[in-house]
Amino acid sequence: MRMSEGVEWGLHCCVTLGWLDDRAPVSIRRLALWFDLPQEYLKKRLQALARAGILTSAPGVRGGWSLARPPEKITVMEVVAALEDGLDLFCCTEVRQKGAGGEGAAPSEFAKPCGISSVMRRAELAWRRELASHTVADLMERSPQGAERTRRNYLRMTG
Amino acid sequence: MRMSEGVEWGLHCCVTLGWLDDRAPVSIRRLALWFDLPQEYLKKRLQALARAGILTSAPGVRGGWSLARPPEKITVMEVVAALEDGLDLFCCTEVRQKGAGGEGAAPSEFAKPCGISSVMRRAELAWRRELASHTVADLMERSPQGAERTRRNYLRMTG
Repeated sequence: MRMSEGVEWGLHCCVTLGWLDDRAPVSIRRLALWFDLPQEYLKKRLQALARAGILTSAPGVRGGWSLARPPEKITVMEVVAALEDGLDLFCCTEVRQKGAGGEGAAPSEFAKPCGISSVMRRAELAWRRELASHTVADLMERSPQGAERTRRNYLRMTG
Repeated sequence: MRMSEGVEWGLHCCVTLGWLDDRAPVSIRRLALWFDLPQEYLKKRLQALARAGILTSAPGVRGGWSLARPPEKITVMEVVAALEDGLDLFCCTEVRQKGAGGEGAAPSEFAKPCGISSVMRRAELAWRRELASHTVADLMERSPQGAERTRRNYLRMTG
């Protein structure tokens, strides 16, 4: 049970593009060098973030990628949802209705979700609620050294 | 990103064994019929629950499986932890240190966990906290019809 690696790269891209906002757009070539990632791998993640309205891309020689919204308007939950295929950790297969144990139930009995499924759903909501309470701007603020290093290294890369 | 099916079966086993407490131990053969599952598949899950001190097995012709503790002393979190290989949804690979973006950092900069990793950890803790706040006894109580059906069907199965 593990989140895809793409989520981690995607979040770092958003934070980096937030820090480099006055230098954006940032080309895919530079972003790939930045993270030492294959361009094609990175491109797929950036495109998924664009489909979710989190990033935007400008065409042309001076084109590239930038945040589509202010970083305080992008939650960690949105980035995770854009990059992770399925967000439901638990999948209820209605075990209660199976085998000899499920026989002879009243038709109404299975109308409400199974109690096990409900507890799992509550836990997943707690997880999502926490992810939704943090924004890309929060992540940017919490790492002032990272912000400085990013601007310094980008100046060197482009200068 | 999905929990293994074994967690769902394991939780249903615990709740069922809780309801059948006065008829326990329940043989693996009956449990397999109960859930319409291959015995070998079920056995592996029951053994994992036994290793976690959640279930106990008695040998012999009249042997079988029962809860090792009162159901109010078994949390959903414990059952999930016993049956799920890894509980960390997010794995930090220190993206901040990679590529051109990570160059020239002060040695102290990476001493603290990455902010992205910290947010993910907080969300996972919220998920675990919710799972830890529900017990097998809670699940048993919330489904009185399931309890009745289980006792009725088990009586029929055991003659």
